Amino acid sequence: MGMTKIVECVPNFSEGIDLDKIEKIVNPFRGKDNVKLLDYKRDADHNRVVVTVVGEPQAVKNAMLEAMGVAIEVIDMRNHKGEHPRMGAVDVVPFIPVKNMTMTEAVELSKEFAKEAAERYNVPIFLYEKSASSPDRENLANIRKGEYEGMFEKIKQPEWKPDFGPTEVHPTAGVTATGARMPLVAFNVNLGTNNIEIANKIAKNVRFLNGGLRYCKAIGIELKDRGIVQVSMNMTDYTKTALYRAFELIKVEARRYGVPVIGSEIIGLLPMEALIDTAVYYLGVEDFSMDQVLENRIME
Amino acid sequence: MGMTKIVECVPNFSEGIDLDKIEKIVNPFRGKDNVKLLDYKRDADHNRVVVTVVGEPQAVKNAMLEAMGVAIEVIDMRNHKGEHPRMGAVDVVPFIPVKNMTMTEAVELSKEFAKEAAERYNVPIFLYEKSASSPDRENLANIRKGEYEGMFEKIKQPEWKPDFGPTEVHPTAGVTATGARMPLVAFNVNLGTNNIEIANKIAKNVRFLNGGLRYCKAIGIELKDRGIVQVSMNMTDYTKTALYRAFELIKVEARRYGVPVIGSEIIGLLPMEALIDTAVYYLGVEDFSMDQVLENRIME
Repeated sequence: MGMTKIVECVPNFSEGIDLDKIEKIVNPFRGKDNVKLLDYKRDADHNRVVVTVVGEPQAVKNAMLEAMGVAIEVIDMRNHKGEHPRMGAVDVVPFIPVKNMTMTEAVELSKEFAKEAAERYNVPIFLYEKSASSPDRENLANIRKGEYEGMFEKIKQPEWKPDFGPTEVHPTAGVTATGARMPLVAFNVNLGTNNIEIANKIAKNVRFLNGGLRYCKAIGIELKDRGIVQVSMNMTDYTKTALYRAFELIKVEARRYGVPVIGSEIIGLLPMEALIDTAVYYLGVEDFSMDQVLENRIME
Repeated sequence: MGMTKIVECVPNFSEGIDLDKIEKIVNPFRGKDNVKLLDYKRDADHNRVVVTVVGEPQAVKNAMLEAMGVAIEVIDMRNHKGEHPRMGAVDVVPFIPVKNMTMTEAVELSKEFAKEAAERYNVPIFLYEKSASSPDRENLANIRKGEYEGMFEKIKQPEWKPDFGPTEVHPTAGVTATGARMPLVAFNVNLGTNNIEIANKIAKNVRFLNGGLRYCKAIGIELKDRGIVQVSMNMTDYTKTALYRAFELIKVEARRYGVPVIGSEIIGLLPMEALIDTAVYYLGVEDFSMDQVLENRIME
């Protein structure tokens, strides 16, 4: 019950088929003091596994370095095929401040990881998101463009010199991105229609890309088995673009099509604050403080 | 990050004026391993201090026993005056299961406390709420009726024999009640009128006592400085009577008076689940699980 700092780390590794290899990669997150493996989800089509781990920052970083060593041993990017874009055996390593930790501290942690990983494994490392060394590098998609195969040429351009490690792609491990970011909330809103065009139009109206909410990515999705469509969102900073705001805006947009909002879903984990903000909005609670949440007081 | 059980304890002591005595009573909750003093609020008119402490069940119980010893030393009920009803130096000791703990375990803990307190301090102890030995004793107000002064006669009646300790009031410490209960949520809804009659009528319609929601106590209150009135509620089991249900019901009732609901307030602490339930309702989230809340996964 001390003021323990807690970081979340969600590394993506380029192996989603060979269960034996996946277990080897995930193993360094098991049985360690102050490190807790919450989840790992592989996708065979993507040929990729996404691991979720939380814990004390240095302990998580060290376990992550160990897992990276294993991944580099068992993955050979020269033979890697998958639907999801990728550029390295350890494709991306996001650090997310969760408790008693500032974004600045998470940025620091990602840079320590980048430096040690580059030195230990001789892999070029790019910093992205809040850790980016230039605006071009904030968006992971920009860094990853060209993927593993294109990286051998790309890395020679001065504007794509890695932040740490050699200016040369690791032949079997490729390159890695790391950085600090806010937690993502996967929030999907269901519409009472099977018309995907309507979901697409609403998605465009609410997302940042087309003039909508700043921290909202959105696409239209068909749920064929239910005969409905959905606005599938990634909320990239729930502290600035609240869930209820996206939800109410979708209701407003849906109105012009005469389509009802019939529910929603939240995929995976989210911080309690994202939902507490929403409750406080709907109940119109005045002067609410997160210190009033019992669990926050216990965890200090 | 183990599966630590956490209990909350909210003892009420009959001293709200003498700061030196209050500090002495509160001190046993400070500097102990696995015990965390969250808050203590004294009220001079009530002549009473309410302490909020959380921690590992045995550690909290032991600190509570120690604080009881101090309270018995410094408080003399023969001289106690205050607006709040009271029957003992240590008036009531509720134990509330907060994390990885069942209500049954909290009941057990309250009984252990009762037994040890009675033996150590020779004070009669009554079990109330979920720990009650008969339905008459569930409601604290029933046990406390007659207060300290009336207890000397009351305790002689067979139906008011204490659950632990002597069948004789402690001359300076009176008697004590202890038991396990759900966390209370103090939730007040503000109305856009200064007509207290309307607040009173709505309070009657929503509260259990008059045919309203089962786990809701409510009264009308004037906020004179703001020129408005409020339905002031005590939600006695938010897992069964959700906050949003009381809020929406008040809106429904307010409609017949043409009065708007203009906001609300939450006083003191509440468990995250009380607000997360509410967010999940308003967003219409399907199949939500509390396991999706990151903080719940960290605290396991």
